[in-house]
Amino acid sequence: MPPSAIDQICINTIRVLAAEAVQKAKNGHPGTPMGAAPMAWTLWTRHLRHNPRNPAWPDRDRFVLSAGHASMLLYSLLSLTGYDLPLEELQHLRQWGSKTPAHPEYGHTPGVELTTGPLGAGFAMGVGFAIAERALGERFNRPGQAIVGHHTYGIVSDGDLMEGVASEAASLAGTLALGKLIYLYDSNQITIEGDTHLAFREDVAKRFEAYGWQVQQVDGEDVEAIDAALIAAKAEAARPSLIVVRTTIGFGSPHKAGTEAAHGSALGEDEVRLTKQTLGYPEEPPFYVADEVLAEFRKAIPRGAAFEQSWDHSFTAYEAADPDAAAAWRRAMSGELPANLADLLPVFESKGGEIATRVASGKTLNALAPALESLMGGSADLASSNNTHLDGSGDFLPEGQHGRNMHFGVREHAMGSIANGMAIHGGFLPYCATFLVFSDYMRPSLRLAAIMQAKTVFVFTHDSIGLGEDGPTHQPIEHLAGLRAMPGLSLFRPADANETAAAWLAALKHAGPTVIVLSRQNLPVMDDVENIRAGVGRGGYVLADAPGGQPAVILIGTGSEVAIALKAQDQLASEGIEARVVSLPSWDVFEAQPREYRESVLPSAVRARVAVEAASPFGWPKYTGDAGEIVALDHFGASAPYQVLYEKFGITAENVVAAAKRSMAR
Amino acid sequence: MPPSAIDQICINTIRVLAAEAVQKAKNGHPGTPMGAAPMAWTLWTRHLRHNPRNPAWPDRDRFVLSAGHASMLLYSLLSLTGYDLPLEELQHLRQWGSKTPAHPEYGHTPGVELTTGPLGAGFAMGVGFAIAERALGERFNRPGQAIVGHHTYGIVSDGDLMEGVASEAASLAGTLALGKLIYLYDSNQITIEGDTHLAFREDVAKRFEAYGWQVQQVDGEDVEAIDAALIAAKAEAARPSLIVVRTTIGFGSPHKAGTEAAHGSALGEDEVRLTKQTLGYPEEPPFYVADEVLAEFRKAIPRGAAFEQSWDHSFTAYEAADPDAAAAWRRAMSGELPANLADLLPVFESKGGEIATRVASGKTLNALAPALESLMGGSADLASSNNTHLDGSGDFLPEGQHGRNMHFGVREHAMGSIANGMAIHGGFLPYCATFLVFSDYMRPSLRLAAIMQAKTVFVFTHDSIGLGEDGPTHQPIEHLAGLRAMPGLSLFRPADANETAAAWLAALKHAGPTVIVLSRQNLPVMDDVENIRAGVGRGGYVLADAPGGQPAVILIGTGSEVAIALKAQDQLASEGIEARVVSLPSWDVFEAQPREYRESVLPSAVRARVAVEAASPFGWPKYTGDAGEIVALDHFGASAPYQVLYEKFGITAENVVAAAKRSMAR
Repeated sequence: MPPSAIDQICINTIRVLAAEAVQKAKNGHPGTPMGAAPMAWTLWTRHLRHNPRNPAWPDRDRFVLSAGHASMLLYSLLSLTGYDLPLEELQHLRQWGSKTPAHPEYGHTPGVELTTGPLGAGFAMGVGFAIAERALGERFNRPGQAIVGHHTYGIVSDGDLMEGVASEAASLAGTLALGKLIYLYDSNQITIEGDTHLAFREDVAKRFEAYGWQVQQVDGEDVEAIDAALIAAKAEAARPSLIVVRTTIGFGSPHKAGTEAAHGSALGEDEVRLTKQTLGYPEEPPFYVADEVLAEFRKAIPRGAAFEQSWDHSFTAYEAADPDAAAAWRRAMSGELPANLADLLPVFESKGGEIATRVASGKTLNALAPALESLMGGSADLASSNNTHLDGSGDFLPEGQHGRNMHFGVREHAMGSIANGMAIHGGFLPYCATFLVFSDYMRPSLRLAAIMQAKTVFVFTHDSIGLGEDGPTHQPIEHLAGLRAMPGLSLFRPADANETAAAWLAALKHAGPTVIVLSRQNLPVMDDVENIRAGVGRGGYVLADAPGGQPAVILIGTGSEVAIALKAQDQLASEGIEARVVSLPSWDVFEAQPREYRESVLPSAVRARVAVEAASPFGWPKYTGDAGEIVALDHFGASAPYQVLYEKFGITAENVVAAAKRSMAR
Repeated sequence: MPPSAIDQICINTIRVLAAEAVQKAKNGHPGTPMGAAPMAWTLWTRHLRHNPRNPAWPDRDRFVLSAGHASMLLYSLLSLTGYDLPLEELQHLRQWGSKTPAHPEYGHTPGVELTTGPLGAGFAMGVGFAIAERALGERFNRPGQAIVGHHTYGIVSDGDLMEGVASEAASLAGTLALGKLIYLYDSNQITIEGDTHLAFREDVAKRFEAYGWQVQQVDGEDVEAIDAALIAAKAEAARPSLIVVRTTIGFGSPHKAGTEAAHGSALGEDEVRLTKQTLGYPEEPPFYVADEVLAEFRKAIPRGAAFEQSWDHSFTAYEAADPDAAAAWRRAMSGELPANLADLLPVFESKGGEIATRVASGKTLNALAPALESLMGGSADLASSNNTHLDGSGDFLPEGQHGRNMHFGVREHAMGSIANGMAIHGGFLPYCATFLVFSDYMRPSLRLAAIMQAKTVFVFTHDSIGLGEDGPTHQPIEHLAGLRAMPGLSLFRPADANETAAAWLAALKHAGPTVIVLSRQNLPVMDDVENIRAGVGRGGYVLADAPGGQPAVILIGTGSEVAIALKAQDQLASEGIEARVVSLPSWDVFEAQPREYRESVLPSAVRARVAVEAASPFGWPKYTGDAGEIVALDHFGASAPYQVLYEKFGITAENVVAAAKRSMAR
């Protein structure tokens, strides 16, 4: 059925604005907004429950533009429906300082729910939204009093559905029966290299049915069919929905529609003019929006006010019935932490024997969990190894109720994305876990966490050759360097159980993402918890100083190698050499300290330095300097018990001592 | 149907050896070998065309143990069928110096075709094997004279099938109609956290049908049914095959079979004994293999000799009919390069104007392609941006013939894995491409390339904020550091078109994997090709020295920032300060040079140094030292034209000059 006249002109407005904005920028992606305009229009005017005047309304429906390159689609919708994004800004697409960057950026443009662009990421983070909604509802909704009840909608592309991360997330979404997740699949059958037939001949609908999704197929120009499919998708409570919308990329462009030429380049001045002609759109002025179109879009404002008002009434009643629950809701949504958080941390005693930092992390998590009901997470099928299980809490499964233990399956990339989605959604302090070496599988989600400053805690255990027998494929070498190099990501590699507890404290207080890197093997527990907590909070600190505070050499270690540095300090002392041991669990936090503090820990005058870390030496020269030495690994590991590996690869106190002497000799 | 007596005892031998070896190591994965023993036995004795006495026979069937943790399954098969892996070695599982590391390692144990363990990787690399077989056949087989015609078999696990990379590879395998790819899916429905119902409720069979695979389902104890399914799979020429084999993890263990307790831990001494009792296996001696069992397995030796002899006859006939083709085959399989390779490289003239290094890379590829028929590859749907298309060659598609342009789709991770599989298979010099920022999606495949020393060339374009408008999600910052930190991976970031050609030369001569990092934006072309080629070949070199060869300061740059360093050199010269410019395209190659050479390029006496790179400063202090400065980016980028970004973020000649003066002042 063809759209009504007003529908059509609104849809065409989105199309023309996209063509014009990309033309003005001279580059960008006009075709997808032009093809997807009808589904976006239908969703945003007939289904999406949002309030343009309050993008932070907690129970709003979430909209995810997984095809982030189609940003002009979203910017037009936001601007036209009345978000704080003036129409003027559409003319500054992809320019310095504008609110309309090439890809949607969370925190930058009002109404943008997620940073998208890297394909598949939005799809998977949206699953995190839907999980957050479900879990919040399980925690807070009461019979007859629902304060959580929104949908997560998204527009996903061919490219999204080719990416493995979307497959992983789709499988988990089906397993979890996320009935409030509804994705419109913009099936334009064109990618950058040409027809999807070149590389993507699968039956997508059947694949999603196999995952347990409801699948419908509609014509992308048929607004009523799209509407009906959205109604049916909302009616399906037990399965996520994929609506396969057959579209034409660059719809309206007489020479480029339906071809890859409409995908990633400006159409050209002439073609933009011809597009307007084809669509029956006024050729002048540029960026023209008819009054009736704006009026139609702006109906979203009173509608949005009504949505939120209705929710406010519900919440008022909820609060009246259960003020404690309402207060807990507010705390959860604000991310407020208990004032006594530090007091909740376990204190580990050295006389208790050696303990792996992964075990200490598990104990810390479990000590915090009762007071921090927002803590929720799990592992990519390694919970018992990552020590991430919350005792006394159930599993998050379709048949569960308020279970906080998530089972991500062997899907690291989707796990990271989902945890990010939960963090951005609000209401949770999500964590997720795998072996450090498999952080490689989820690097794109770590990066998006860093870009968005999503408060996700990534727990990476088995952090070196110290994992032993599993061998080179499982032994991280270059991962610490790779993660330390990422802007916006905080990383801790604690040296013992007490540093581990302190790292959790720092992670929970940090506004952005934190990686906590933990040992498989047991490590001695260090005393002086006060010094440790303060020191970890500053990223690095003097753990054991030279007797006179005037060291001849500084030994710097992280994680499991701090114990080796301490042993080397003893050996050096027995030879009359006074060494200082610095524990440096977090380079980024240490770098953020005032210069005086850093200088007090690593005085410039002491040029004899040795760093010891069972990982790549890459990056360490920053701390060891011209006269320093690094005891590290510049090759892959091997399969053997870990004590053998430390010995064979020379990560030993003896080598630290020898390196200290070499450094002192310079 | 129950197995015959001899089948059963052979199968049980595999089971008991796995239980015993893991028990002796005190850790490992006994359950999967025990469950998968019948399918492995059936495949290896009735279908796999291999020659234990010559693991390098080129037309052997390939066997991929994607579930690499089940390594004992493979080690038993190799040892029992007569590969150069003494039975004694099974007793040293997971020990230093043994041929039986925890996970199979390519190049370490005879008969191991791929390094596996990271889940999904083997699945995807096996697709690369099947593509290599298809493409080799297209190139070399003649009507009535086939010298290529082997299958790729694999055993894949629940965990493999949850990983996104396997989904990506499966979709592409279906698209490419890889009829000679046959995977046995060990569906034991147990993962580390428990029943797969926790996280994996999808209909796997239906999903693979949607990808275009033939799917069959059989009982894992029914050798005849497995055999029949393998026969049917081989009969299916137009579709890859998945045989879903319903198994019991830890089969034979009375208390742990069918539970996660059998997955990743030794069963325990008592349980091993009880397992032997249950299976009717002699309790003593340990690691017992009955003579009749060994004799049965060893039939593989004469069978293998006959396979190879028959192939030798075919090849002799082939060679007689077409000696040139036979010689080309030999060259392809040996990886031999044309003697005049360097002469084939294009020479770019500075008067030709500016040119992006990605464009120069495309020209180089196309200049080499006619003489290097083994070059084959493509992009993850960015061929026109990555400049990886081979002009005059067709597409590699089911309906094509000897097309060398691959279309990987938006599947970076599978792309890297597939290229690795092709490299390890032999016969190809595979390359693959995407934007540098999306190397994150394929990091696990980069790592496996480095571990295996697979000769894969990774082309990563759009290598900095120099890509401009696409913004922070597309602008790599930390990627150079992250890749440079990886052992075994060679990386070049050429400064201009001629350095780019030289980087390709280095990559093709290198025995392992190489990353070539390229600009989107145009860059000036530098003259003196001889110096450039020699310098790039050594990783770094003096590009433009101080007039007297005694610089007051050294400016070090890579890639697009070398031009900025040269400009800064000019500005410094105008102020009477003599600077040397060092181009450092490859840190790893430079590090491998003799000390004297490195000292000649970066004399220790010159402590005033500035590094300039539009990327994270992480790692640079190694070259800049205590007195040096780094002009770089320690934050994410932004969406704007690239010239604006360089200016706003201070990657400018002016800042290099200022930094040089600061460094000189120290």
